[in-house]
Amino acid sequence: MCNNHKNMTTTHVLSTPSAKAPFEKTTIERRELRPYDVLIDIKFSGICHSDIHSAFDEWGGGIFPMVPGHEIAGIVAAVGSEVIKFAVGDRVGVGCFVESCGECEYCLSGEEQYCTKGVINTYNSLDYDGNPTYGGYSQKIVVTEGFVVRIPDSLEMDVASPLLCAGITTYSPLKHWNAGPGKKIAVVGMGGLGHVAIQFAHAVGAEVTVLSRSMDKKSEALSFGADHYFATSDPDTFTALAGRFDLILNTVSANLDVNAYLSMLRVDGTLVNVGAPAEPDQYHVFSLIMGRRSIAGSLVGGIRETQEMLDFAAQHGIAPMIEVIRADQVDEAYERVLRSDVRYRFVIDISTL
Amino acid sequence: MCNNHKNMTTTHVLSTPSAKAPFEKTTIERRELRPYDVLIDIKFSGICHSDIHSAFDEWGGGIFPMVPGHEIAGIVAAVGSEVIKFAVGDRVGVGCFVESCGECEYCLSGEEQYCTKGVINTYNSLDYDGNPTYGGYSQKIVVTEGFVVRIPDSLEMDVASPLLCAGITTYSPLKHWNAGPGKKIAVVGMGGLGHVAIQFAHAVGAEVTVLSRSMDKKSEALSFGADHYFATSDPDTFTALAGRFDLILNTVSANLDVNAYLSMLRVDGTLVNVGAPAEPDQYHVFSLIMGRRSIAGSLVGGIRETQEMLDFAAQHGIAPMIEVIRADQVDEAYERVLRSDVRYRFVIDISTL
Repeated sequence: MCNNHKNMTTTHVLSTPSAKAPFEKTTIERRELRPYDVLIDIKFSGICHSDIHSAFDEWGGGIFPMVPGHEIAGIVAAVGSEVIKFAVGDRVGVGCFVESCGECEYCLSGEEQYCTKGVINTYNSLDYDGNPTYGGYSQKIVVTEGFVVRIPDSLEMDVASPLLCAGITTYSPLKHWNAGPGKKIAVVGMGGLGHVAIQFAHAVGAEVTVLSRSMDKKSEALSFGADHYFATSDPDTFTALAGRFDLILNTVSANLDVNAYLSMLRVDGTLVNVGAPAEPDQYHVFSLIMGRRSIAGSLVGGIRETQEMLDFAAQHGIAPMIEVIRADQVDEAYERVLRSDVRYRFVIDISTL
Repeated sequence: MCNNHKNMTTTHVLSTPSAKAPFEKTTIERRELRPYDVLIDIKFSGICHSDIHSAFDEWGGGIFPMVPGHEIAGIVAAVGSEVIKFAVGDRVGVGCFVESCGECEYCLSGEEQYCTKGVINTYNSLDYDGNPTYGGYSQKIVVTEGFVVRIPDSLEMDVASPLLCAGITTYSPLKHWNAGPGKKIAVVGMGGLGHVAIQFAHAVGAEVTVLSRSMDKKSEALSFGADHYFATSDPDTFTALAGRFDLILNTVSANLDVNAYLSMLRVDGTLVNVGAPAEPDQYHVFSLIMGRRSIAGSLVGGIRETQEMLDFAAQHGIAPMIEVIRADQVDEAYERVLRSDVRYRFVIDISTL
């Protein structure tokens, strides 16, 4: 453990040297602690589908070698001289970003993800000094305290890690679009994001309908708190649910028949996307005009809201269903995610790194 | 004039016998007055672009012969036995619809345009009895009082008529999306709808930018109250205005480069469409996610809000710029609308019918 903030910290990581290349165990240097920095011993790191998009460079602009991972749960190992929020031994998490300008209207309102200067992602970004960021497939990470959140005691560390992305990505739009008692919410897709979205939507008091391709996951959906479950492979689903939902939260990154989904919205209803397909979506403007409907998108959530989400999850017993893997299983895990063979989130046990 | 509500009323109309056929002067029967009906002597009837879409059957399902017109200004000529809201001689208007169920949640909340049973359009619809509706290119019309609004004394009848569609179609989304002081609003397109939208957006206190294809209409845009004017044919417009608007009100029915327009929205901004192109629009989901942006649509406005809009227009001196034509000029006017050769709305002087 390093608690000397005058020095860099060498840490073991899982790194991919180029797009689609297998992961390798290697080391990188973490920066020496600045006054507001926190050094974290990472215990668990979740595997998000966007890790795969990034590691395979499917969105372009990938910075290699790359150390993915933005669902980080760990223990504070050292703190900078000015840190007051955290102490050594604290249970903490880091999500999708690690820095923002701190001065723009969005940073000041706690929505750092929309920082006008551009938020610095936890990995595959260049920080304001021009240095690449490296993520959570790593034994240690250094993050400024403003981007570190506290993991409540009642949340297990392994279970907590996926909440740092999958949790906030679904919690934030549910709150923003006022999911709650009396509201009818549909969750499209029951994967890493969807199975957490169901739990949050149920916990805030909404009536929750799951729209999944087949009936395969029905019993699990109900166990997560869903009130109804329909298969989107059945065209009758769309007529049966016409004009029903206040909000449809789409967690699927594939292109949808947008008009068909819009037809299930009430007047003033919104279809919110939290995953982005590579190809454009299409819609007919009439589908929006007839019912003053909206199509929207939402990007994770701010730090303050991430803390609120963790506290809410702890209070309501919300827990991702995870499969803990060893560090040497990451390549295989990626393949399994790509064939949807995971219920519902892989989490790397960093002690095996 | 007919003031015998026991009989049908024969009235002269401009009717088109089939899609794209020239208009003919002929007669139709208006129903005998029911207890809540109002008989109106029509004075002026605006020509809306959707009249052309309907008369040319471009949206399909056209009911012929067709008498278009849903921007109706006239004088009450007779009232049914139970009418209390209007008296003979009152200055009144009728807009895009003439009946709704009156019982669903949307009717009860004054948003009849979203009636779950289906609103009855002023023309080219079948009413709940199965009879076709005929619109304002007509000397007289019979409408139930709940769908008639009062034209304030300070509004000229000819100028008032386009407000019944172009006015409410732009006023309603501006109000719904909270246009007002401190908000930056863009109006896309400066035609029949756009030139009224500018006036409303200015009158509610917003900062108004006009986005038009060329610079041709700049001086008129400023005279309507626009603060800024940009040509969309200049690619620099989109970079100069990146992240600027709270609301973009798109009054153009052609397909847009949706991603380019979304890029001009602030976080939580909305692109609202009030016109619908025949072909689908495309967007990339990332354009929505990065900034929690929305694409929406809006359909005219309810009766209560239409009255509010007329009162607001009277109070703020808002007036469509019109060209009054004779009944025998309608075919020619349609051709001129199609080549954008109108500033900014044709209005038929029904006394020439």
